Order: sequence, then C-alpha cells, then structure tokens
Amino acid sequence: MTETSLARAGIAEGVGTAVLVIGGVGTAVLAGDTVGTVGIALAFGLTLLALVFTIGPISGCHVNPAVTLGVLVSRRIDARRAATYVVAQILGAIVGAALVLVIASGRPGYAIDTDGLGTNGFGSASKGGYGLVPVAIVEIVATAILVFVVLSVTARSAPQSTAVGVPIGLTLTVLHLIAIGIDSTSVNPARSIGPALFAGNLALSQLWVFIVFPLLGAVIAAGLHRVVFNESR
Amino acid sequence: MTETSLARAGIAEGVGTAVLVIGGVGTAVLAGDTVGTVGIALAFGLTLLALVFTIGPISGCHVNPAVTLGVLVSRRIDARRAATYVVAQILGAIVGAALVLVIASGRPGYAIDTDGLGTNGFGSASKGGYGLVPVAIVEIVATAILVFVVLSVTARSAPQSTAVGVPIGLTLTVLHLIAIGIDSTSVNPARSIGPALFAGNLALSQLWVFIVFPLLGAVIAAGLHRVVFNESR
Amino acid sequence: MTETSLARAGIAEGVGTAVLVIGGVGTAVLAGDTVGTVGIALAFGLTLLALVFTIGPISGCHVNPAVTLGVLVSRRIDARRAATYVVAQILGAIVGAALVLVIASGRPGYAIDTDGLGTNGFGSASKGGYGLVPVAIVEIVATAILVFVVLSVTARSAPQSTAVGVPIGLTLTVLHLIAIGIDSTSVNPARSIGPALFAGNLALSQLWVFIVFPLLGAVIAAGLHRVVFNESR
Amino acid sequence: MTETSLARAGIAEGVGTAVLVIGGVGTAVLAGDTVGTVGIALAFGLTLLALVFTIGPISGCHVNPAVTLGVLVSRRIDARRAATYVVAQILGAIVGAALVLVIASGRPGYAIDTDGLGTNGFGSASKGGYGLVPVAIVEIVATAILVFVVLSVTARSAPQSTAVGVPIGLTLTVLHLIAIGIDSTSVNPARSIGPALFAGNLALSQLWVFIVFPLLGAVIAAGLHRVVFNESR
Repeated sequence: MTETSLARAGIAEGVGTAVLVIGGVGTAVLAGDTVGTVGIALAFGLTLLALVFTIGPISGCHVNPAVTLGVLVSRRIDARRAATYVVAQILGAIVGAALVLVIASGRPGYAIDTDGLGTNGFGSASKGGYGLVPVAIVEIVATAILVFVVLSVTARSAPQSTAVGVPIGLTLTVLHLIAIGIDSTSVNPARSIGPALFAGNLALSQLWVFIVFPLLGAVIAAGLHRVVFNESR
Repeated sequence: MTETSLARAGIAEGVGTAVLVIGGVGTAVLAGDTVGTVGIALAFGLTLLALVFTIGPISGCHVNPAVTLGVLVSRRIDARRAATYVVAQILGAIVGAALVLVIASGRPGYAIDTDGLGTNGFGSASKGGYGLVPVAIVEIVATAILVFVVLSVTARSAPQSTAVGVPIGLTLTVLHLIAIGIDSTSVNPARSIGPALFAGNLALSQLWVFIVFPLLGAVIAAGLHRVVFNESR
Repeated sequence: MTETSLARAGIAEGVGTAVLVIGGVGTAVLAGDTVGTVGIALAFGLTLLALVFTIGPISGCHVNPAVTLGVLVSRRIDARRAATYVVAQILGAIVGAALVLVIASGRPGYAIDTDGLGTNGFGSASKGGYGLVPVAIVEIVATAILVFVVLSVTARSAPQSTAVGVPIGLTLTVLHLIAIGIDSTSVNPARSIGPALFAGNLALSQLWVFIVFPLLGAVIAAGLHRVVFNESR
Repeated sequence: MTETSLARAGIAEGVGTAVLVIGGVGTAVLAGDTVGTVGIALAFGLTLLALVFTIGPISGCHVNPAVTLGVLVSRRIDARRAATYVVAQILGAIVGAALVLVIASGRPGYAIDTDGLGTNGFGSASKGGYGLVPVAIVEIVATAILVFVVLSVTARSAPQSTAVGVPIGLTLTVLHLIAIGIDSTSVNPARSIGPALFAGNLALSQLWVFIVFPLLGAVIAAGLHRVVFNESR
C-alpha cells in the first residue's frame, strides 16, 4: 500500500462521508416533513448502498468512525490508516453538513433550530422524549448490528464484491426505521459531528453520546464477529 | 462438519434471530405508529435480506423454525442440527424481544399492552378482527410461500451465493404487506414466541396458532418444492 | 427438453402465477387501504422479483401470458410450450384469486364488490375515471416496457443469472406506481382473469381490454427488442 | 465500433430516455398526488435501475446528457458518439413526455398547467419557494453525485456487470427524495427539456438552469473521479 493509495483512500472516505450526510441528513432537513421516517430511512440506507459500490474498491467505504474502529479492532487495517480515515470522515461530514445548511438557508423563512439540521439527541431533543439510558442502549445495539454486518459480509476469502453494499446499506435503512423517532439515529460519530457543529449548544453538549456509544457498539460487534466467524486474521 | 462449526452455526442462528426480532418487531413496537405497515414490512424483509448475506455462509441463515423444518424435511440437514438451530432461534428471539422491551420502556408514559410488543393474534387481537380460520389459512399459505422460495433459491448445485438474500428478504416484506393487518404476520414461530413471553395471557393463549400453522406451511412447501424441482438429495 | 421437464415447468408457471396474485392482488384486496399505492406497487414488483429467482431456472418465470407471447414471437420457445404456460398461468391466477377471496371473506363485515377483489377496469371502474382509450394506451405502453425489459435482460449469450429478477420485478413496481390510479394496472392477462371470474359482471365485461392490449404491447416489445439488440435466434 | 452498432446504441438511448420519462415524470404527473415524494423518487430510481440492466450492454445506458458529458470528459467515448447519444436522449424525452401528456389528458377534467407535467423550476415554480441560487447549488451537487457514482461503478477493468444498475438507480432515488420539494429534481437536461416543451412559458424560460447546472456538476464529477480513481484512460 503506497502513500498515494492511502491519500486517495482518505479522499474517498472524505467525499463518501460528505455524500452520506448530503443524502441522509439532507433528506431529513430539506424533505423530512414530506417524505417522513420511511423516506429518511431509505435515503440514509440507499446512499450508503451506492457508496459501497462506488468507493468500496478504493477505501473499503467505511464512511463511519465506528466501522473504522471495528475494522481496526479486527486487525484488518493499521492504526495509521484508521486515523487517516477518521479525520477524513469528520472533515467530509462537516463539508456535507455545511452544504445542506447552505441549501436549507435558501428556503424562504428558514430559521436554523436545534432539530432543524438533522442532529441527534436525547431528552428534550428526542422526538419520543427518550432519556439518556435508552438512547445509549439503542446506539450500542444498532451500531453493533451495523458493524457486525459489515465485518461479516466482507469476511470471505473469496474475491470481494461490491454487492455487499446491498446488505450494508439496507441494514442502515432498518436501523433508521427503528431509531429516528428515538434519537434521529446516529450509529456514526462523523454523521453526528457534522450537523452538531452548526446546530449549536444542545446538540454539541449531547454529542459525546453519539461518539462514545456507537464506538462501544463497534467493539462489541468485532468481538461477536470473531466468535461467530472464528477468524484469525 | 465438526462440533465447533455446529456450535458456531447455532450461535449465528441465535444472534441472527435476535437481530430479526430487533429489526422487525423493534420497528413495529418503537416506530410502528410513524412508519406504518409499509415501514414495518420493509424492516422485517430488509433485516432478513441482510442476515442472509451476513450469516448465510455460517449457518444457512434460517432464523426461523419453519425454515429449519422445511430444510430438514428436504433432507438437507440432520435432526441434531435442526434441533440445535431451533433452540438457538427461540433463545435469540427471546433476547431480541427483551431488548426491544427494555428500549420501549424508556419512552415516557410507556405501558405494556397486548399489541404493544408486536405479538401475533386473531379475533380481538387482530387489527382487522379476523378469526382463527382465516388466520390459519394466511399462516399456512404465507409460510409455504416463504419456505418454497428459500428451498428453491438455495437448490442450485452451483456454488451458493449470498445474493439469494434478496429474494428471500423481499418475499418476507410482501408477506408482511399482506398480513400485518390480519394477524401482524408470523410465518416464524420463534418471532412469535419471543414477544408473547413478555406480552402476557392473550398472546400466550394464541401462541400455538403461530407455531402449528407456520410449521404446517413449511411441510407443504417442502413437498411442492420436491415436485417442481424434482430433487433427490 | 423432455415431457417431464415441460410438465414441471408448467407446474412452476401455475404456482408462480398463483403466488403473484396472492402477493399483488392479495395486498391490494387485504391491505390496500393501509399500505396505499406505494405498498401495492412494491408487493407486485417484489413478488415478481422473488419469483424470477425462485422458478426462473425451471420455467424462465413468465407468470404472464404477455411475457410468454413476447418470448414466443422472439422464437425462444415453441408454440406447445407457450400454450402449456398460458393454461398454467390462467389456472394459477384463478387459484390465487380464490385464496385471496377466501381470506378476505374472513374479515367481519366483508362484502364482495366490483373493485373489492383487485380487478382491472376503465370508466366507472377506474379510480381516476379514465376511459377506454387512455387505458388501452397505458396497457400497451406499460406492457411493452415490461416485455422489452424481460426480453433484453435475458438476451445475453452469457450464462443466465437469476439476478435479472431485480430489474424485472422493479419495473413491475414502477408500472404499478404509474397506473394503479388509472386502471389498477394489468400488463398481465392472467392477473386480470383470476379476480374477474369472482368479481362479476362489470369486470368480466371489461376483461377483453386487459387481454388484448397487454398482448399487443408484448408484440410491439418483441419488435423493438429485435431492432435494438439485432438478435437472430 | 461499426456504424450499425452506433445506430443501435442511439436507438437504445432514445428508447431508454423515453422510458425514464414515462416511469419518472409519468408517475409524478399521473400518480404524484397519491404516491407522494417517496413514490415519485422510487419511480425515477427504479426505472433507471432497470434500464441499466436492460440497455447497458448496448449503449452503456446514459439516458442523460450530463452522464454523457461526464463520460466524454473522462475520455471513454468520442465526440461523435456523445453527440449521437444527446440527440437521441432529447428526442426520447420528448416522445416520453408526449405519451405522458396523451394519457394525462384522458383524465376527466384534466387541464394542463405549469407544474402539471413534471417540469423543473425555481422561484414560483418551486414547491418550497427556493430561488435560483439554492436550486443551482442543488443541481450542481446532485448531478455531481450521480455522475461520480456512474463513472466510479463503471471504472473497473474487470468485465462489466449490469448489477451497477443497483447503485446508479438508487442514487437517483435519493437525489429525488432530497430535491423534489426544491425544484422537482432534474440532474438530467433531457428529462427537463421533454416536459418543458409541452408545459409552456415559465418552464421554458427557466429551462437553461436545468441544462447548465447539471452539465457543470457532471464536469466537476469527472474531475473528482479522476482524483479518487487515478485513472488514465
């Protein structure tokens, strides 16, 4: 793996995470009232599905620090690559959220508000009023499911196929169907950081929840994957 | 097939069935009011689709005692493996339902009720008021369709592809579109047992319906598959 | 091709068409009020998608006399096989419609009515009040699109893949999104015949429309396919 | 590449673009009130998905002048082929829009109006009242995403698979989820030209927006693709 290819992989992760935020958070912010939870869930999942086909051959298409952590813990990449990816993912998510904000501000009468930019939250920031404990459980369980799927469908020794984008993306759709009403669904710290930086105090003060618990879920998934697949790589 | 691989397959079936209940029943319980029948049907089907890609190479991804019975009757697995799978499926479904209940109880004002945990039912427990006979017919026919699809798409002598998750999962979506309004759709005894254990008397007293008729549908499917595919394996 | 394999292919076509009617018409009749046009369109398309994976290797999965006519005109099958398929498709559609009717009659207060069994129609039987001419155009154009897709995705000389179920099924979904509000979407004479036999006079008197124009569309599709693919088979 | 094969590819592009307009614009015009934004977004994306499987082997299935420009800038086709494709795409879109108009005019009480034929627009023609600047940004960004996906999933040196229709089509669905409420989503000059010719003054006067900015997005995508994939072809 050369320096050049790592640089290109980092760019791919940055572009990919920006596209994920535009596709998912963009739909929530710009069209959420019209397309509802089903539409937002499809937007997040189908964007990820397409991204796996698109940048999978370049970077593996993590576009999510939790996925990168799961892959690192499973010893498929080294720490330097993981760090490059996570920095690129966060920068990409910020660019994506900024683009969504620019477009949203073109709507007559638009005023930014806490849940107006697709931020994640609990308590008063949860649509269903869910508190910290159930939100933490949801993020751990949902991220564990996502990362378990990612690690397992990419575990074959056979030549990798981009078709694994189908189960990975559609898993993300299901997780959003379940959890949009609970905490707007993170399972991806980068996706949470991008909008929070623009949305202000409440989202920022709760941001740690959507970093810590998805990462915890990823570690659990890596352990579960090792048990089920008996991998030593 | 070694002891170790059977153990890992059993764990995969348990984890997979837990994920199916979290994805499908979880969406029904936590988001059903918002995402409606289409959203719930997508959640069940897309979860199964992803699971076939994920644990198919480990266990075949039955995650359903009716599927395991159909495969057993078709003589593709032995009784010991089938029994291991069914036990794991039921345990997994109970764990999945418990997790959904824990999350749901975090919602302010949540009170458990008969149809508040995604249980299957007929009569007063059916949204459309359907009685035992039409519900029995629905479960027989719908499970027969599901198991016929599973047995047929995995019947090729060619190397198995996890892409069969696509028709298997999307068939489950269609069966839920048809039958959620009738009996909340079982076609899977484990999926019915998990929530019923927590939901109480009515669901428990009707539980036999969602064990007997799906299993009957699976046997019919195995016979129909044999006629159409002329298999002797 | 032996007698036995033609018999099995015919059974596959019958079973497949019954499943298509149960999945599509069943959703329309039993759940249409709840799942809406999007749900019904998904049910028809995803059922067909799954059927191509399931019985494609046995019969080619036409489950539609218009498709069989297009394949016959393209000289890929002989008249005897085509006739066997069409008879099986019609019988299967009748069985499927009968099963849907039996289940529907289990709903308290159910009374059969003209548009209560998923029949196709124009004029007073069209949700949008469309007359014969626009309905004829819709059936010709929509069936031509479906059959053009079927003939084209199965035209490769490379080994056939059941993955062509994806574009075929999703095309049927799109055609239903367009035309459910116009004439409930036929594009398949067998699918129209089954329910009409149980629904009574109006549906029966209009049935010829949903036989003649889909078949006309299929012939147009075969010609268009020949021009674009330059096939001589 | 012979004259005959270029002619057949041109016909395929014309037919394909007509089908895209019938599927997408047709659903918006004939069923948009019923199926909503989610239904329209699925119709556009699933039609494109099916078309890639159907005519991909003949022409590459651009069915969009912005895609053709991106492919031309990436030096995968020559100017003569590109010009042939674009002419065919525009003619196809006009035929498709004419067919939709003919069918729509069969609805009792139908009167053509500016947004009654699925035209794109900004200002008073935007559902959300978005002005020229946000609409320009949306078209640039959304088309860049679409063309980046197309160029990337078709970039492998391995034998091309029509399965790339899945990410390409579903990307178009996501872009419609985001932007239908903003400008009805173009990302395709041919798709905008077809309906505008029949819809009248406002759509025609704004048409340049849906030609210039999608093409600009396509050029940006080609540059981004070159950076990430390091291609020299």
